[in-house]
Amino acid sequence: MKFTELLAGAWARNDSLLCVGLDPDPAKFPAHLKGDIFRFCAEIADATADLACAFKPQIAYFAARRAEDQLEALIAHIHARHPGVPVILDAKRGDIGSTAEQYAIEAFERYRADAVTVNPYLGRDSIEPWLAYPDKGVILLCRTSNPGGSDIQFLKVGSGGTAVYELIAEKVAKEWNPDNKYAGQLGLVVGATFPAELARVRAIVGDLPLLVPGIGAQGGDIEATVRAGKTAAGAGLMMSSSRAILYAGRDENFAAAARKVALETRAAINRYRPKNINSPADSFG
Amino acid sequence: MKFTELLAGAWARNDSLLCVGLDPDPAKFPAHLKGDIFRFCAEIADATADLACAFKPQIAYFAARRAEDQLEALIAHIHARHPGVPVILDAKRGDIGSTAEQYAIEAFERYRADAVTVNPYLGRDSIEPWLAYPDKGVILLCRTSNPGGSDIQFLKVGSGGTAVYELIAEKVAKEWNPDNKYAGQLGLVVGATFPAELARVRAIVGDLPLLVPGIGAQGGDIEATVRAGKTAAGAGLMMSSSRAILYAGRDENFAAAARKVALETRAAINRYRPKNINSPADSFG
Repeated sequence: MKFTELLAGAWARNDSLLCVGLDPDPAKFPAHLKGDIFRFCAEIADATADLACAFKPQIAYFAARRAEDQLEALIAHIHARHPGVPVILDAKRGDIGSTAEQYAIEAFERYRADAVTVNPYLGRDSIEPWLAYPDKGVILLCRTSNPGGSDIQFLKVGSGGTAVYELIAEKVAKEWNPDNKYAGQLGLVVGATFPAELARVRAIVGDLPLLVPGIGAQGGDIEATVRAGKTAAGAGLMMSSSRAILYAGRDENFAAAARKVALETRAAINRYRPKNINSPADSFG
Repeated sequence: MKFTELLAGAWARNDSLLCVGLDPDPAKFPAHLKGDIFRFCAEIADATADLACAFKPQIAYFAARRAEDQLEALIAHIHARHPGVPVILDAKRGDIGSTAEQYAIEAFERYRADAVTVNPYLGRDSIEPWLAYPDKGVILLCRTSNPGGSDIQFLKVGSGGTAVYELIAEKVAKEWNPDNKYAGQLGLVVGATFPAELARVRAIVGDLPLLVPGIGAQGGDIEATVRAGKTAAGAGLMMSSSRAILYAGRDENFAAAARKVALETRAAINRYRPKNINSPADSFG
């Protein structure tokens, strides 16, 4: 199954565009977990799996603590318990071909991620080793949510006034995807901080899935993001929230507190898109 | 000690601009090593440490094989046995501030690298967490050696015809380094495949160290690279070679074969720069 088919299944089944970001910081864990990264993330995943269209573990939080084994175990746990919810490894790798092959082994064979985030600065041939895995997703950085994102991404290229991030969107939609060869494999990262630019990317890339970090619990941002980024069918987005969900509670009820925020965030997103008629929750609820 | 002071010490002591890249592929190891990544890399390092200005382990080769512990052990081994030779962790990380902090912990605290390669696509605030370690080097991708490197890096920005890679060089030399605040911490990656562009970067950045991947054993490329990239003092470069050295021999003499190629490569580089009057080898040899 292609990555975007897996994703579309989760969009429909869970009536959700919410991606739960797993950025585990043991200093913020409830005391009773004694810093157990796997247990913290697994309990969050179990409490939110029916509300999410994807999980997005951020590898840096694991690597900083020598917790690669816990990341492997977490992804295996999600695949075993929640097989319909894709796992996006947020790694933002980017390297030349022979090295990109090694990184693809890391992400797809070792960690068994369904998709990975990749940095496009090294160009087309640095992306191709990732695309050699036909069932896996490759989500390329386009317009990031941080202030410095403008430094390079917002530069105007050539005489037409096209920004670098728009050119990345064009390349990913067309030149790097000849004859739609990689249909179902490609996506883009576009921050929620810039709704006008999100709308611009959506106009360029058609129905390509967009991973949108930067939403909080604030309805305003969510409204602008959904309106700017959704497809005609009211989907197309993985709207990622991490800290607001992970650290909603600081005691033994942290997973229930996370579930409550995930429910609220899903509802806040769904307020601004068409009701999902394919959702089992709608059919039977 | 600043990273560039450590590097300058190795340039002088070993009369060398050669950086030995450690990209361990167990399929290419001599049979008697039975795939032992640590032992292979440590023997290469021990055989070439007096000929190199730096070692550059590529983390993807370790991560693809669950060999993070061997990478830790390798860097500890180099620090213990060859303390004057800096270790550059080739990781090409790039992420927003809070995540970049985690990656900096990974590279500088966990692995104890002296410097790291970083992708600048996310802009200035994604670089600053790395620069918060005053003794460590941050080597930003500028112009990479692969064919696709042109896709983004060679785009012309604005009306002046400046390419993206030139703008990165300008930003790193000036705007991202106000009042030379990060003196001794910054460097750039510029591939050996484009000598004219290497010369252009050198003209922009003064004496900033440049990490130059892409040299082989071919004298022609080396000549063009040294002439285009060296500083007035005849240094300023870390010219990286990996496979040509690592896999020079395929049997029990692999380390001696690697040493032979490293000696030849150092000599080929030194042919095109002023004799290093600070070198102990010159003073006593």
